Amino acid sequence: MERDLIARIKRLAESSAEDSSVLAGIGDDCAVLVPRPDRRLIVTTDTLVESIHFDLEYFDPWHLGRKTAAVNLSDAAAVGGSPRWALLNMAVPQGLTGVFWDSFFEGLRSRLSQYGVSLVGGDTVSAPERLSISLTLIGEIKGGRWLSRDSAKPDDLIYCSGHLGESAAGLELLKRYKTTRDTFRGRKAVHRISRAVLKRLASRHLDPEPRVTLGQALLASGMVQAAIDISDGVATDLAHMCKNSRVGAEVRAGEIPVSRSLKSASRFLGVSPLEFALTGGEDFELLWTVSKKDRSEVQKIASKILGHIPFHIGRIVRGEGVFLRTSQGAKDITYQGYEHCI
Amino acid sequence: MERDLIARIKRLAESSAEDSSVLAGIGDDCAVLVPRPDRRLIVTTDTLVESIHFDLEYFDPWHLGRKTAAVNLSDAAAVGGSPRWALLNMAVPQGLTGVFWDSFFEGLRSRLSQYGVSLVGGDTVSAPERLSISLTLIGEIKGGRWLSRDSAKPDDLIYCSGHLGESAAGLELLKRYKTTRDTFRGRKAVHRISRAVLKRLASRHLDPEPRVTLGQALLASGMVQAAIDISDGVATDLAHMCKNSRVGAEVRAGEIPVSRSLKSASRFLGVSPLEFALTGGEDFELLWTVSKKDRSEVQKIASKILGHIPFHIGRIVRGEGVFLRTSQGAKDITYQGYEHCI
Repeated sequence: MERDLIARIKRLAESSAEDSSVLAGIGDDCAVLVPRPDRRLIVTTDTLVESIHFDLEYFDPWHLGRKTAAVNLSDAAAVGGSPRWALLNMAVPQGLTGVFWDSFFEGLRSRLSQYGVSLVGGDTVSAPERLSISLTLIGEIKGGRWLSRDSAKPDDLIYCSGHLGESAAGLELLKRYKTTRDTFRGRKAVHRISRAVLKRLASRHLDPEPRVTLGQALLASGMVQAAIDISDGVATDLAHMCKNSRVGAEVRAGEIPVSRSLKSASRFLGVSPLEFALTGGEDFELLWTVSKKDRSEVQKIASKILGHIPFHIGRIVRGEGVFLRTSQGAKDITYQGYEHCI
Repeated sequence: MERDLIARIKRLAESSAEDSSVLAGIGDDCAVLVPRPDRRLIVTTDTLVESIHFDLEYFDPWHLGRKTAAVNLSDAAAVGGSPRWALLNMAVPQGLTGVFWDSFFEGLRSRLSQYGVSLVGGDTVSAPERLSISLTLIGEIKGGRWLSRDSAKPDDLIYCSGHLGESAAGLELLKRYKTTRDTFRGRKAVHRISRAVLKRLASRHLDPEPRVTLGQALLASGMVQAAIDISDGVATDLAHMCKNSRVGAEVRAGEIPVSRSLKSASRFLGVSPLEFALTGGEDFELLWTVSKKDRSEVQKIASKILGHIPFHIGRIVRGEGVFLRTSQGAKDITYQGYEHCI
């Protein structure tokens, strides 16, 4: 199986053989790449481990391939970078079929090629039990600037690119129903929750959209300095940004973007939608800050790319910590939720 | 433990904070790097999985850290590249202590800093059972040329940088004795094999020397085009080179560099030293080819770096396959041994 798997990876790599920046790719000891001289390099890497980050009972291989790419692309988005090359490391247990791998690589390819990323190397080893997948992305940024976690300033406004909490609610639903395909194809009605809601939320978990084009546009605007992708929940990711920028943040409960689908699922699951939205991970929306002066210009840029107006959820303040402002007052939510990576 | 581990990784990354090519390292969504404009980038990655590639019964954490670096550095060596930056991905089970991690990171640091490599990012996730470690190296090569697997030519002479088979014999000894420290410190005598031999062979397995400086010098000489590092045994790695170069190779049994230590261990283990030397993996010596015209000049360059004359083991021929020439004739040894990575 390992040789068969390597052959598949090589075929995937060959599909990006027309990339003239790749002088040597898979099959030599190192890939040899040619970056453009006026660019900075960016690199990022994330690992997905079976039973920790996904369960093959509800994660079909095509979505797993797409998500492997998306979680890394989202990190590139958060700095405003242009991903160019990928390396794939896998630890592979016995028993996964050729059909599984065809589907996985087709999913991976579909997301990588969306942003012109070439697979240039990797490593495949046997694993006794669980499938583990690490993807490393290397890319570029134009000029000397990039979006970072450490440049939020007091009085900046905090924006995010989309609805929050849907991925976490989708995961809860997937864990209960352990199904994607049947439900997605509409063959099966699910008790007490509409098929459309289940499909939307499951899809937010299985197939998150990395905000690469948005990140690049925010950087190119010259008006945004601070950004982060929401991988661990806004309470945690905003806390990272505040800590690195030595500021605090205040988010307003009424402005947290909660979709109707999330509200419907939340009733069904018995968890408040705000809880999902603040502490649920893996939405992979972008969060950024902008000065009052530049807010409307940046809002216009983001709206054009997103197809909707980005959500203004709060503001940066002096001090430290992330506070949720409700009609009952302010509550410390710093680092609430879960954290699964550095 | 995971937070503690992340703190250790951050400290390791901070120790390379003086590297002015690293504008942002661990702690942001991507590392941001500045390559020099007249260089090509190289990237390589390798994964080590507990119970597949190492066993903590005989692999102490300091050596594990050093070897994690060495196996990747060896790939950089094989293209003649200069490694600059590293990313570390780990899947970590419960139960490994702070003392373990201190020692692992000290080992990793010692090998990376030997070649000026900065740790700039990574990912740490929980694993249910086994420790899995992937390191990715990014580096540079000067100008437009690099050493590759696909440029060996008929009549080229084949050289290798050191004794072969010692790592595989060392692994066999380590598996039997499940010990490193005690033996290494000389407290324990081992039956029928000298402590010095055990120490030397175990060390070849636990702490291989990546031939980075040699690879760079061979590339800089302008006289060497084809090289590969011996990770899967010379029978397999030379077969890779031959296949990629569309040539064959003939190696002479009498010229395969077999040390006295290997001969002594082979008698003890009941395996022929030639078997270890041809099919045993993980020696991480460099193998390269050179024309007859340039042989003595290149030999001089290599000798200066190695401290000994490199071994001339055979020659490239027309056709395909790797053949071992003995007094009894020629034997096909193409791809004999084991292969554990792409």
